Amino acid sequence: MSKTRVGIINVTGYVGIELARWLYQHPGVELVSVTGRSAAGRKLGQIFPHLANIDLTVEASLGAVDLAFSAMPHGESAAEVIPLLDCGLKVIDMSGDFRLKDAGEYQVWYGHAHPAPHLLSKAVYGIPELHRKEIREAQLVANPGCYSTGAILALAPAAAAGIIEQDIIVDSKSGVSGAGRTLKLQSHFCEVDEDVCAYAVEGHRLMPEMVQEVGLVSRGPTPRITFLPHLIPMNRGILSACYANIIPAKLPGKNSQEAVRKIYADYFGNEPFVKVVDVPPHTKYTLGSNFCLIYPTIDPRTGKLIVISCLDNLGKGAASQGVQNMNVMLGLPETTGLNSPGLFP
Amino acid sequence: MSKTRVGIINVTGYVGIELARWLYQHPGVELVSVTGRSAAGRKLGQIFPHLANIDLTVEASLGAVDLAFSAMPHGESAAEVIPLLDCGLKVIDMSGDFRLKDAGEYQVWYGHAHPAPHLLSKAVYGIPELHRKEIREAQLVANPGCYSTGAILALAPAAAAGIIEQDIIVDSKSGVSGAGRTLKLQSHFCEVDEDVCAYAVEGHRLMPEMVQEVGLVSRGPTPRITFLPHLIPMNRGILSACYANIIPAKLPGKNSQEAVRKIYADYFGNEPFVKVVDVPPHTKYTLGSNFCLIYPTIDPRTGKLIVISCLDNLGKGAASQGVQNMNVMLGLPETTGLNSPGLFP
Amino acid sequence: MSKTRVGIINVTGYVGIELARWLYQHPGVELVSVTGRSAAGRKLGQIFPHLANIDLTVEASLGAVDLAFSAMPHGESAAEVIPLLDCGLKVIDMSGDFRLKDAGEYQVWYGHAHPAPHLLSKAVYGIPELHRKEIREAQLVANPGCYSTGAILALAPAAAAGIIEQDIIVDSKSGVSGAGRTLKLQSHFCEVDEDVCAYAVEGHRLMPEMVQEVGLVSRGPTPRITFLPHLIPMNRGILSACYANIIPAKLPGKNSQEAVRKIYADYFGNEPFVKVVDVPPHTKYTLGSNFCLIYPTIDPRTGKLIVISCLDNLGKGAASQGVQNMNVMLGLPETTGLNSPGLFP
Amino acid sequence: MSKTRVGIINVTGYVGIELARWLYQHPGVELVSVTGRSAAGRKLGQIFPHLANIDLTVEASLGAVDLAFSAMPHGESAAEVIPLLDCGLKVIDMSGDFRLKDAGEYQVWYGHAHPAPHLLSKAVYGIPELHRKEIREAQLVANPGCYSTGAILALAPAAAAGIIEQDIIVDSKSGVSGAGRTLKLQSHFCEVDEDVCAYAVEGHRLMPEMVQEVGLVSRGPTPRITFLPHLIPMNRGILSACYANIIPAKLPGKNSQEAVRKIYADYFGNEPFVKVVDVPPHTKYTLGSNFCLIYPTIDPRTGKLIVISCLDNLGKGAASQGVQNMNVMLGLPETTGLNSPGLFP
Repeated sequence: MSKTRVGIINVTGYVGIELARWLYQHPGVELVSVTGRSAAGRKLGQIFPHLANIDLTVEASLGAVDLAFSAMPHGESAAEVIPLLDCGLKVIDMSGDFRLKDAGEYQVWYGHAHPAPHLLSKAVYGIPELHRKEIREAQLVANPGCYSTGAILALAPAAAAGIIEQDIIVDSKSGVSGAGRTLKLQSHFCEVDEDVCAYAVEGHRLMPEMVQEVGLVSRGPTPRITFLPHLIPMNRGILSACYANIIPAKLPGKNSQEAVRKIYADYFGNEPFVKVVDVPPHTKYTLGSNFCLIYPTIDPRTGKLIVISCLDNLGKGAASQGVQNMNVMLGLPETTGLNSPGLFP
Repeated sequence: MSKTRVGIINVTGYVGIELARWLYQHPGVELVSVTGRSAAGRKLGQIFPHLANIDLTVEASLGAVDLAFSAMPHGESAAEVIPLLDCGLKVIDMSGDFRLKDAGEYQVWYGHAHPAPHLLSKAVYGIPELHRKEIREAQLVANPGCYSTGAILALAPAAAAGIIEQDIIVDSKSGVSGAGRTLKLQSHFCEVDEDVCAYAVEGHRLMPEMVQEVGLVSRGPTPRITFLPHLIPMNRGILSACYANIIPAKLPGKNSQEAVRKIYADYFGNEPFVKVVDVPPHTKYTLGSNFCLIYPTIDPRTGKLIVISCLDNLGKGAASQGVQNMNVMLGLPETTGLNSPGLFP
Repeated sequence: MSKTRVGIINVTGYVGIELARWLYQHPGVELVSVTGRSAAGRKLGQIFPHLANIDLTVEASLGAVDLAFSAMPHGESAAEVIPLLDCGLKVIDMSGDFRLKDAGEYQVWYGHAHPAPHLLSKAVYGIPELHRKEIREAQLVANPGCYSTGAILALAPAAAAGIIEQDIIVDSKSGVSGAGRTLKLQSHFCEVDEDVCAYAVEGHRLMPEMVQEVGLVSRGPTPRITFLPHLIPMNRGILSACYANIIPAKLPGKNSQEAVRKIYADYFGNEPFVKVVDVPPHTKYTLGSNFCLIYPTIDPRTGKLIVISCLDNLGKGAASQGVQNMNVMLGLPETTGLNSPGLFP
Repeated sequence: MSKTRVGIINVTGYVGIELARWLYQHPGVELVSVTGRSAAGRKLGQIFPHLANIDLTVEASLGAVDLAFSAMPHGESAAEVIPLLDCGLKVIDMSGDFRLKDAGEYQVWYGHAHPAPHLLSKAVYGIPELHRKEIREAQLVANPGCYSTGAILALAPAAAAGIIEQDIIVDSKSGVSGAGRTLKLQSHFCEVDEDVCAYAVEGHRLMPEMVQEVGLVSRGPTPRITFLPHLIPMNRGILSACYANIIPAKLPGKNSQEAVRKIYADYFGNEPFVKVVDVPPHTKYTLGSNFCLIYPTIDPRTGKLIVISCLDNLGKGAASQGVQNMNVMLGLPETTGLNSPGLFP
């Protein structure tokens, strides 16, 4: 049986490169076409020596494929995706262009009207742990933001159990690769190295995704999220600390710590890529993998729920979650090609 | 006029080394004696080549000084400090041994009864911006913890203005030097590099200092603080994000953003080392200096107060704050020897 | 057909952990037993969350296997390896205990007599690109040192072509994981971060391996190598710059640059893991892979040969080269389980 | 007595920022004017919060000063410097525009004819340890390159003693700040972090400075230098390993190790900023200081001379050496304002 042919639009950014790495190793599909504006005409291995064994030339436009990943930036991806959908292709969009259900939010957060609002209801938000069934039927999957994936997975069990109040704080720490490969002073080595800072204090565009998705599973009120991202001096990895007040009456039993842990363990059950862990996790243990580690606990003094989650922002936070979505869309076993442990140390 | 003679107990840890750097450059005092257990008998410059110009031999016990810094670890410092006090020396204790007013807290947080509870009321908590007057008269100053300094300075103006509710979250990110020079797996290069993790989730011993000090200045309720420290891959620097609910009725005027900024600007007025800044600050801008940068703001969507503070954990978070305290104790101009800008980049 | 059963002695060091990662993903063998002194009795995933999918308990001694990797430290490995050889097992020793042919060298470089000098002639030095044929027949393979692998691969083509003089300089820069997981001040985060230093200036024990192996392929004089290793602030990767004088009469043609590149390209021909590249390589392009990148050139002003090589010290410099050796020993296609590209960025 | 007024042209690069830090703290001069193209009109402290106490506005052109530092890039600095010289100002040029004596070299290494060849003989190469006397009389000092300073100081004693052969290898490892603040992919965080690479393999423009200066002091042949710079993931610091063959007949006594150390100790005698050390030095011990540490040794097996030197590329490798030159030019004690120890860790 011939393998499904897949392609990557804009392979030269960090998400595109990482998609190429995963897809090359994937036994169920064949990576047959990659595009990139400035690099068109060059062999992939000339630009990225570690990909030298992938015998592909970067093209100006996508060749014949059955499924395409768009790794174009926000605001530019929709224009690439729409014609592919019209041709009947399955598409996984790595940008934010199809993640929000409410078209009005695009004006607020991305500064422009959405070019195809009718597609927003067709697009499925690609966290398989939440939307596995819809992804199976989807033609278009909107792959979630890196921060959003970590925060949503950390908050979904508590929200679904209705045990938390409306006000939530998400304090996230991210490696620099999330800022992309485009040159900017904030990603200039000497400005980032040996530094930590908060940014987007006035509001970050991945926050509405969190509100939308946590709101969807919530059996309590629609969440109100204060989200503060930080940049820390490392390549990859996001760790988020989520804080919320427990509604004691909603928590069964006497030992709230234990009850919370049970809620989380039950929620994720046998999920292959989300692990509820016993000790506060390290991003290092997710490097290069599709894993998300989650540690829920109750502050013994203040009674607040603290949930710490971590993942690789280019892994479960982007490329490998895209591959997981692809597996679901193609009816392949969900873990196909995704079982490699992280790289340590 | 002869200069005041000062000494450092346990010069070989990171705080001791940094004290030596500051005191050597200080025009008003003379560093005349340094001690260190394992290094006794060696020239300071043999152990630390960058201190080669300080012509001192590490001693087993302190020579004749007028004022001593103890850079011993928590739990071991009191035993060094008590005899010095009996001899009438002025002492600045860099450890936690005299920071808490309630002796009972030592059992809870440090795991042992306090050896000299009667000294706790005499010791002054050494944040000059809060306790300048008492420090001037003190024989014993308890130099604050690194996390505590940043959090207390970030929260004091809001607490003193009575504009925040009781529940406060302090989410801090620290460089590794705060964990000291003692070997441990958590400070082993390959375990920390390219990693971020939360720790002491069950409770950190610097939290009660925050509650004590913010409580002292508070015109609202005694604060209840959820404190979560994180380790990030850099040498120096702490950035803290503090979250609290505003009590709207207490905030004057219509523009809460502006009102909050005015409260902070007024509180710190002409403080030489605490700067209220207009953009979210970077730890990098405090490296090697005695500065603390503070950015207060209101989340425009949730209305929560967010205060971001940063400092060098070995600077304003330890050694140079110790020198600032010394200046106050000795009646020297408070900025003496402390005016050097940070090192950038 | 049942898979070959393999085991790892001392899985808890960085080489052992990395072996577990590669072997778990290997389609031709089954990892069935792992040992570790302090961690015995614990599940692998409890100690290393990223290995949670490997369902093995760390044992005090090795279970039934067909082939064993010893990841014990130098000086302790031989004692583990010898009994396994007596039982007829195939063994790949990751330490230096069987790398040198001349037993006398162990006294000089390792400070003790070799416990089983008769085995030194039976052990095969495990660089498949040089000793493929002997490895195929070997019961015991001595897996090369990390620095040695990079330097030997960089120098072998020039030495084999007889184009260089005797005196060679190898200046190497290594990430910190090569220093192991044992706590020491030189691996303490704050001592290494933002630092570079040379060490073992008086002589490093991996140098005699280089002399032995480059000498074996040399058609010119026995090499005399000045080797200077440096520690740089990163986890993984070694880059070596090798300098030697060209013997002009031995270099064919007029364009020495071109002639040298042809010698290197011909030497490595279709080697799957050693790539002769057109631009100076980055260690980053080998992260987590079995690749070694080599860039030979002639300094246009001094006429000196400069060869720059790089690899992942835990990859081709240790664990994945061990797996490559295993493939050869077991008669499997040499690239089995080793094709994954490196992780970038 | 009024202080000498000094100014900085192009304060917004890393060298300019560091000059501002040193000059602000200098007791003998007053920093009165700073320029910068894009930042003109803004307060220094708005751009660089750590310089907030320097009450200066960035100007489009230099105000009235007695001595100016030009921190303009190579190729653009001469045009700024020449008019100042015509006005009779003393100038310290931080760029390469006046370092080479042979005007023809500018065509070779900088790709353009020199705009004012007649000034090359008037400019003094600003290493005070070599040219103190000429600097005292100079109107124009060409401040040396960062790599050049480390290599020249490492090689001068051996060359001056005539103990080394002509062929020299300089293998240098540098932090990223040497590449400047201008955005480029090679300084993009994720491309540099966890990476090491060699660059300028075909020839680096700081090499001819080394040949010129080592040649000037040499009592043996004009040196022929193979120079290979490397970029390593840290902000500041350069460590160079220099290799040369000893001419045994020129080395007095029987113990070559001791003889070499004596040559170095005698050469630098009481130099305040160059320290001959007993153990291989770390760049970390020079961070933020004007120190250069030098470790000469003989490889016991190959008899080669190895000299390891290190410094802060923005300190003794740029800004603080500029201040040292200024002190000499102004007749101030040479160590004025330069005595602060480095920052550790």
